Amino acid sequence: MRTIVRGGRVVTSSQAFEADVLIEGERIEALGSFPDVEADRVVDAAGKLVLPGGVDPHTHLDAPLKGTITADDFYSGTVAAAIGGTTTIIDFPVQEKGQDPRVSHADWYARAEEKAVVDWSLHQVITDLPDEFFPALDELIRDGSPSFKMFMAYPGARMVDDATIFKAMRRTAENGGFVLMHCENGPVIELLEKEAIAAGHVDPVYNSITRPPVTEAEATARAISLAELAGVPVYVVHLSAAEALDAVSRARDRGLPVYAETCPHYVLLTDEKLSEPDFGGSKYVMCPPLRTPAHQERLWKGLQDDDLQVVSTDHTPFTFEGQKEMGRGNFPKIPNGVPGIEWRTGLMHHFGVREGRISLNRFVE
Amino acid sequence: MRTIVRGGRVVTSSQAFEADVLIEGERIEALGSFPDVEADRVVDAAGKLVLPGGVDPHTHLDAPLKGTITADDFYSGTVAAAIGGTTTIIDFPVQEKGQDPRVSHADWYARAEEKAVVDWSLHQVITDLPDEFFPALDELIRDGSPSFKMFMAYPGARMVDDATIFKAMRRTAENGGFVLMHCENGPVIELLEKEAIAAGHVDPVYNSITRPPVTEAEATARAISLAELAGVPVYVVHLSAAEALDAVSRARDRGLPVYAETCPHYVLLTDEKLSEPDFGGSKYVMCPPLRTPAHQERLWKGLQDDDLQVVSTDHTPFTFEGQKEMGRGNFPKIPNGVPGIEWRTGLMHHFGVREGRISLNRFVE
Amino acid sequence: MRTIVRGGRVVTSSQAFEADVLIEGERIEALGSFPDVEADRVVDAAGKLVLPGGVDPHTHLDAPLKGTITADDFYSGTVAAAIGGTTTIIDFPVQEKGQDPRVSHADWYARAEEKAVVDWSLHQVITDLPDEFFPALDELIRDGSPSFKMFMAYPGARMVDDATIFKAMRRTAENGGFVLMHCENGPVIELLEKEAIAAGHVDPVYNSITRPPVTEAEATARAISLAELAGVPVYVVHLSAAEALDAVSRARDRGLPVYAETCPHYVLLTDEKLSEPDFGGSKYVMCPPLRTPAHQERLWKGLQDDDLQVVSTDHTPFTFEGQKEMGRGNFPKIPNGVPGIEWRTGLMHHFGVREGRISLNRFVE
Amino acid sequence: MRTIVRGGRVVTSSQAFEADVLIEGERIEALGSFPDVEADRVVDAAGKLVLPGGVDPHTHLDAPLKGTITADDFYSGTVAAAIGGTTTIIDFPVQEKGQDPRVSHADWYARAEEKAVVDWSLHQVITDLPDEFFPALDELIRDGSPSFKMFMAYPGARMVDDATIFKAMRRTAENGGFVLMHCENGPVIELLEKEAIAAGHVDPVYNSITRPPVTEAEATARAISLAELAGVPVYVVHLSAAEALDAVSRARDRGLPVYAETCPHYVLLTDEKLSEPDFGGSKYVMCPPLRTPAHQERLWKGLQDDDLQVVSTDHTPFTFEGQKEMGRGNFPKIPNGVPGIEWRTGLMHHFGVREGRISLNRFVE
Repeated sequence: MRTIVRGGRVVTSSQAFEADVLIEGERIEALGSFPDVEADRVVDAAGKLVLPGGVDPHTHLDAPLKGTITADDFYSGTVAAAIGGTTTIIDFPVQEKGQDPRVSHADWYARAEEKAVVDWSLHQVITDLPDEFFPALDELIRDGSPSFKMFMAYPGARMVDDATIFKAMRRTAENGGFVLMHCENGPVIELLEKEAIAAGHVDPVYNSITRPPVTEAEATARAISLAELAGVPVYVVHLSAAEALDAVSRARDRGLPVYAETCPHYVLLTDEKLSEPDFGGSKYVMCPPLRTPAHQERLWKGLQDDDLQVVSTDHTPFTFEGQKEMGRGNFPKIPNGVPGIEWRTGLMHHFGVREGRISLNRFVE
Repeated sequence: MRTIVRGGRVVTSSQAFEADVLIEGERIEALGSFPDVEADRVVDAAGKLVLPGGVDPHTHLDAPLKGTITADDFYSGTVAAAIGGTTTIIDFPVQEKGQDPRVSHADWYARAEEKAVVDWSLHQVITDLPDEFFPALDELIRDGSPSFKMFMAYPGARMVDDATIFKAMRRTAENGGFVLMHCENGPVIELLEKEAIAAGHVDPVYNSITRPPVTEAEATARAISLAELAGVPVYVVHLSAAEALDAVSRARDRGLPVYAETCPHYVLLTDEKLSEPDFGGSKYVMCPPLRTPAHQERLWKGLQDDDLQVVSTDHTPFTFEGQKEMGRGNFPKIPNGVPGIEWRTGLMHHFGVREGRISLNRFVE
Repeated sequence: MRTIVRGGRVVTSSQAFEADVLIEGERIEALGSFPDVEADRVVDAAGKLVLPGGVDPHTHLDAPLKGTITADDFYSGTVAAAIGGTTTIIDFPVQEKGQDPRVSHADWYARAEEKAVVDWSLHQVITDLPDEFFPALDELIRDGSPSFKMFMAYPGARMVDDATIFKAMRRTAENGGFVLMHCENGPVIELLEKEAIAAGHVDPVYNSITRPPVTEAEATARAISLAELAGVPVYVVHLSAAEALDAVSRARDRGLPVYAETCPHYVLLTDEKLSEPDFGGSKYVMCPPLRTPAHQERLWKGLQDDDLQVVSTDHTPFTFEGQKEMGRGNFPKIPNGVPGIEWRTGLMHHFGVREGRISLNRFVE
Repeated sequence: MRTIVRGGRVVTSSQAFEADVLIEGERIEALGSFPDVEADRVVDAAGKLVLPGGVDPHTHLDAPLKGTITADDFYSGTVAAAIGGTTTIIDFPVQEKGQDPRVSHADWYARAEEKAVVDWSLHQVITDLPDEFFPALDELIRDGSPSFKMFMAYPGARMVDDATIFKAMRRTAENGGFVLMHCENGPVIELLEKEAIAAGHVDPVYNSITRPPVTEAEATARAISLAELAGVPVYVVHLSAAEALDAVSRARDRGLPVYAETCPHYVLLTDEKLSEPDFGGSKYVMCPPLRTPAHQERLWKGLQDDDLQVVSTDHTPFTFEGQKEMGRGNFPKIPNGVPGIEWRTGLMHHFGVREGRISLNRFVE
């Protein structure tokens, strides 16, 4: 079947120009001017932008967290993605401690396979890495899942210690994969949380107060150091703090293969949202937390300077009733996360491109 | 007339992929797969790269210098360019002091129009700018020549003082053009040259000794400061010294619209060439001069980091007999310059892309 | 004759402690505890600081400028200095173009010798340096005046070009002296002044508007580059702009022998003073001009970080009536300068030490 | 009793000048010229330097480590110190886990009190900090021991986790003390050690190979971040790696109260020593390890730039026979440490001052 998208403004990764797009089946056959070519389906894109489908490399669909499950499964989540112009997502199977990571990978794979309506892939989360699991990593890389995520936050839960991080990084370096890191200093944050609760500071606003920017910056620098030692590319997920971005920027200036993403909420919302009345702040509880406006400015600059390469969503939806409310009177029990999968492209186009901060293909023109 | 270039690897500014190129007349109509399309001319590019025609924004064809004229006119120079894959050049009309710059512009225009076999444009050189010439700048911009070059080198000849530079920059800022700068501290170099000659240091090697890197770095920083004050984009031509690149890099980190080019000879040759026997060093006399290997490394890093955006040739050919020889026993009288218009693309592909320093579209992959 | 200063808190360049000071004639014989020693004169310093006499290395006494003469001669100026705790000053003989610099040096020497009541020395200003004056520099260094000042401001008057600056620097490098630089880009400022006057912008406030920070930063960077090339220590006088301090700081981080002073007025007053009504702004006209509060903060930080080593006065007093008024309706004709010789120590103690910005011996404790 | 040290060159923290030193009992009464003063004891210092007694803030006397005890007790160690011109030492009581830190403090205090022949003080090591021990910290500060040391190395032994470090830092911040940090990433090093042993890499040279510079740099940056968050001054002990010094330097440029020491062995010896035959390399096993020459150069620059403020010894002597030999065939069992208490001043004078790297009072003149 042949499709032609006619008369739009085609945006590639480095250019934008008027062209028709000629598609055979699922494959773009040609860009150009094809006035005489006939097609089974003709899409009139006159006056419109024709963009590649978006890739959202950070989603949590049908994902367990703090005793509940995110409010989108692979069907509703990917339908929302498609509506918002995102045609590929990457989700995160989470290894159970003591269990071969391929078990969780197979579980997520089956659920995605069954329900997803867009393209998808998986970043495997590592929570436990005795040497006997090394072959599992190798096999996942061979089978096409070359990226592994680890947590420096959440001690007693998903956090792994520096030795485990380093082991995983080195194995991944040998096998040609790369590593994603959630960079927050778990033990220090846990201490601050406990002290906050003990002092009766139980409201959502303490999500941000107990996770100060230095805790993110420290962990980011540490992740980069460990990756440098291991010789592996590292990708910092959901970067939110200016000081963390400084660490990324310094590493990139030294030529290290260090990459980072931020999310629409970090560049568009601030920690004032956490004070919304009637527990409304809970809707904005996430990790790392929303920051102050100065951090937003630094993030936009990072996007302009290519110190941030990606805007993902970290889509982690919870309903207010029944889910966010689980943490009333105890903010660490609020399921952390916000949705975004449907709106990422539009938000970045409106606030980024239309307001002159970034260009259509992300670089400032 | 329709042409198809079939089966090559098409390189765009950000990607490379297998595709056919469909051309109607002089215009690329489409990229894609066109097995069934017929054409007047079919070029078999199987196993080959299909690149856009190169742009060399810095040539001196049929150009007067030190009492002689460069050895290529717009015919021989542009034939060489075309052979080397360069299909657009930009040359430099030089205003005579006291004369409306449009006079020189018209002169160069006529010669290029008559002889050039590839596309071309002109950067007008400003050597004198009383207020009465301001409208001439405005008109040149309106007529499609928005770029002006000034010299901080060559006192008593093409050099203009800081006030003139600033005036030209400010006018250009108002009119939407931009400015190219030859950045070397002319007065200090002139002093060093005179002292060298007085001391009997007359050989080509003194081309480099009398133009130390600091003289280039100082002028580069000064040009950037003046442009910052004027609010105009500035483009540093033929950058050769590591310290000059540091100044460009600092400015770009601050977000200033500062750009720079280097040339193949600066990344591929060193100042040892100036010691070739039998006056052979004269062939490598240029301004700024060839530098040491450490500078070469810094320049490659600049290309990788996008602190250098362009590789031009500064094509300024002179024959050894009759031209370079004019400076025997008096190195400042050696016509300064080297050719390159034919070899730029090949040299950068061989030493840059093939040796793994830059990618086909310049960015390291 | 023996003097004892008893019971004060003695401040040295790195410490402060309770001690007596035992003086024989003009020489400090001992610091310590001398309860039993008798003296011709006993000064009770209990509860007081005992500081070394201040050194003000930048004064203009009995100095011609713009057709008038500063309002203090070596008598009134040094009496004021002594009252303010300054017991050594360094003043500036100005070479007339074409004249051996020793002529002006002898002139200033005689006037200082006749009238000064405190210790003094001279920095010779160079305005003209044909090779035949080189021996004069050598002799001045031999005779104990090893420091030379040059101006990058005031074209057509005291300004020297880059070649002259470089020549003087190199000779001074060979002879073991050092160079002081007034760093402002004269030609650009002159252009801005002329344009301001032509536009009817004649009031004192244009002193600051026509001398933007970049003009100071550019010249500072240039002076440092020329000094680096010459291999001579360089001292930037009356630094006022944050960006100029950045250039000094970068040079010092590279280990270059670069030094700089600021003045009390630059850390204590801002350019708002230039708008005082009834031509009152003229009292604050100086070169470089007063800046905005952000510059003040950077200067204080420079003092704390040792990027600024000295606070001098640039004492250049003019009366309002008869002198400052010369520039009514034509701000460039206002004699530029402010007094300070009597108040420097007190101002820096009050606003620096007492307000916690610097310690008694300048370094933050 | 009165002593006079006559005719020497007295060196203070910022100056050096000819003077007599007049001493009553243990107290310096006066510096100056006292030709007529009589004394019980006259020391002829003509032609000699008269320096304050050295302070060595990092020694381990009579200290248990890896099942043995350092080879100097407080008598032999302090006699050696005095011979070498060091008249004050600071040693390290080590808290046993679960035990009130005051117990170890009292133990060390008693042993020092009994045997030391020079002045001394103590930095208490914290290895365990449940909240119930907070008052002990407060009391130690009140009693004059305001400095606490923690280890980021040696997991399972002296290492404390980030939460404990942060807790101790915050308490110390509240009480006006400061914190010393041993900065090496313990878990990563432990992994590398185990892998080395498993691979049969058992010789002393693996001391350096298993403790790469990044492990020190990472921990240094982390310690600084935690101290920044806690608002406490931090002092990095025995810094050896260039990259760790870069982290200190960046923090100091930001104005943070961060300090660091290095040791004579790090600036004077390199990791080649670890390859001495016949297990001779064991004599140079220490943590952090000896580095390459490039690190030495960076450390000297750090001393010149005041990014390193102190040269201590980390005096930790072990005999070759019976002690260093404990680790034959198993390098992690080699008691780590080198002596230095007697030679620190002389080494730094010879290789630092005499060879022109630093001045007598440490700053380059």
